[in-house]
Amino acid sequence: MPNIPGIDLDCVLPLKNLSQGRLIKSFISEKKVKKAVIIGMGYIALEMCEAFGKRGVAVSMVKPGETFLPWMQADLSQMIQDELVQNKVALYAGKTVECIESSQIGARVVLDDLTLDADIVLVAAGVVPCSELAEDAGLELGAGGAIAVDRMLKTSDSDIYAAGDCADAYHVVSGEKCWIPLALRANRAGWAVADNICGVKTELKGVAGTSVFKVFDLQVARTGLTVQEANTAGFSPVENMITARSRAHGHPGSTPILVNMVGDKASGRLLGVQMTGTEGVAHRINAAAVALQTSMTVSEFFQSDLAYAPPFGPVWDPLLTAAGQLLKKM
Amino acid sequence: MPNIPGIDLDCVLPLKNLSQGRLIKSFISEKKVKKAVIIGMGYIALEMCEAFGKRGVAVSMVKPGETFLPWMQADLSQMIQDELVQNKVALYAGKTVECIESSQIGARVVLDDLTLDADIVLVAAGVVPCSELAEDAGLELGAGGAIAVDRMLKTSDSDIYAAGDCADAYHVVSGEKCWIPLALRANRAGWAVADNICGVKTELKGVAGTSVFKVFDLQVARTGLTVQEANTAGFSPVENMITARSRAHGHPGSTPILVNMVGDKASGRLLGVQMTGTEGVAHRINAAAVALQTSMTVSEFFQSDLAYAPPFGPVWDPLLTAAGQLLKKM
Repeated sequence: MPNIPGIDLDCVLPLKNLSQGRLIKSFISEKKVKKAVIIGMGYIALEMCEAFGKRGVAVSMVKPGETFLPWMQADLSQMIQDELVQNKVALYAGKTVECIESSQIGARVVLDDLTLDADIVLVAAGVVPCSELAEDAGLELGAGGAIAVDRMLKTSDSDIYAAGDCADAYHVVSGEKCWIPLALRANRAGWAVADNICGVKTELKGVAGTSVFKVFDLQVARTGLTVQEANTAGFSPVENMITARSRAHGHPGSTPILVNMVGDKASGRLLGVQMTGTEGVAHRINAAAVALQTSMTVSEFFQSDLAYAPPFGPVWDPLLTAAGQLLKKM
Repeated sequence: MPNIPGIDLDCVLPLKNLSQGRLIKSFISEKKVKKAVIIGMGYIALEMCEAFGKRGVAVSMVKPGETFLPWMQADLSQMIQDELVQNKVALYAGKTVECIESSQIGARVVLDDLTLDADIVLVAAGVVPCSELAEDAGLELGAGGAIAVDRMLKTSDSDIYAAGDCADAYHVVSGEKCWIPLALRANRAGWAVADNICGVKTELKGVAGTSVFKVFDLQVARTGLTVQEANTAGFSPVENMITARSRAHGHPGSTPILVNMVGDKASGRLLGVQMTGTEGVAHRINAAAVALQTSMTVSEFFQSDLAYAPPFGPVWDPLLTAAGQLLKKM
């Protein structure tokens, strides 16, 4: 929880587990909540916009950074902002919350130059790893302050393993340590630790940072590195953005899919993909995630035999079109 | 067109191109078609069930083979049959059409032991490659009687290239020649021929036989080899079928997804995947298609960092669960 005066008010709630979710749900109906302010604009914040919206709650989102989703390519980020605005979510990026004051209706969220009324304030300003216990015990910390583990999930003490959002991981694209706390890695690491403790040697190759989330009717997905991350990791990244369709030309109901793809000029490798669209995004990203897992080049990926039928996409899958266009820049 | 007496009646129509599609559409409305008999049970036949159904036309399907979809694992095949029956499609597998007779209402399709009335008869009994011109010119024919081409799409005459459904291809899993006439390969081969003719050397690695189609509300997808095909290609295949869910545990609207996965006991390689379900099948298959393209083992594929969010799937993607369960048999 960020250190903001008023963060301890009853109507200021975080959402990190199921019981907090249930508390928010009952708070909304009991207090007849009409206005919510969300502090933060990450996955949880964006997903909660829809949850509030469906319950008739008007949402405002606030965060100190100027850029809406700094890791996302500008056109894709704009598509998400448009979806939010269309659903009457008010965005206040670049605004610092100075304090939260108690008011007659609930709370007033005070920014530097304006004040937002709220019946509920959701704090979704990010997470930090719970690694204090490990640190106090003298274990090495790694990426993002998480517990450093090797591919067998072993910590710096060879008798102690760590799994879950508290531990770091190797990134399959950069080969470097990273901290991307997501459910599959945490779950998979738990299994691997159990295997290793029981004598079944299990090594995890690492994560690609694959993630997907839903913002009202929009699906947003990513895997691998952004251009900025690729630069930091020592690649020579080049990126390209294309707009494709979710169904075949002439098939009714088709909607736009935006694909941003990043490749490495030096090695030809595929480095990352981001996608937005109202259908056909969530599972399509997995094809790119598998390609990253096995260090495919963009050119090899472009040769993949992806599925085609008119209700599900164009003859050339949006990912193939993206790869073909990116190749021209590489 | 199969050689059946009565195949030349006005109400007996094939569907191989857009103008034939338009003809069927106008025939249905002009003749007030109420009953259709489809000869064949392949992709086109199955997709047309929905097209007829939406226009209020009752459908019966007939084919000589005993097994509904012989290339599909039994549980998945049953799921498709259930979807057809639920939508009032009558299936007559193992029935030979002896002749089609003209009748007052249109036609009578005469089988060995019963007769089906029809206002329209759709012939969707498969395709053969248009390779006569090439054969007459002395070019070598390859898989399925299609024109034999190398990875540069060159025929047995080095000055002649062939692209489209008329030409064969290498299969990326078996490494052998195959004839799987689908749109992406045909389109891609056209580009590659143009590149090669213009001096830009382009080799196509091959096809994985990835395909997807829609049967009413059901999505059906496959990539790679079936157990039978894998046996023929000299692998030691082992298969496993799992039932997963299309959304996270507890997320409303979840439906079953069936996944059948085939691996090679000798090399550990992933050989093929088949999937059925009402959501999350069509694009999910592409992750497996990419894995086949790069000859991944089941164990490597199992490590892939696939996307997770509650509206789109369980923490462990159905493909990962399938891989994990298949590994236990390998």
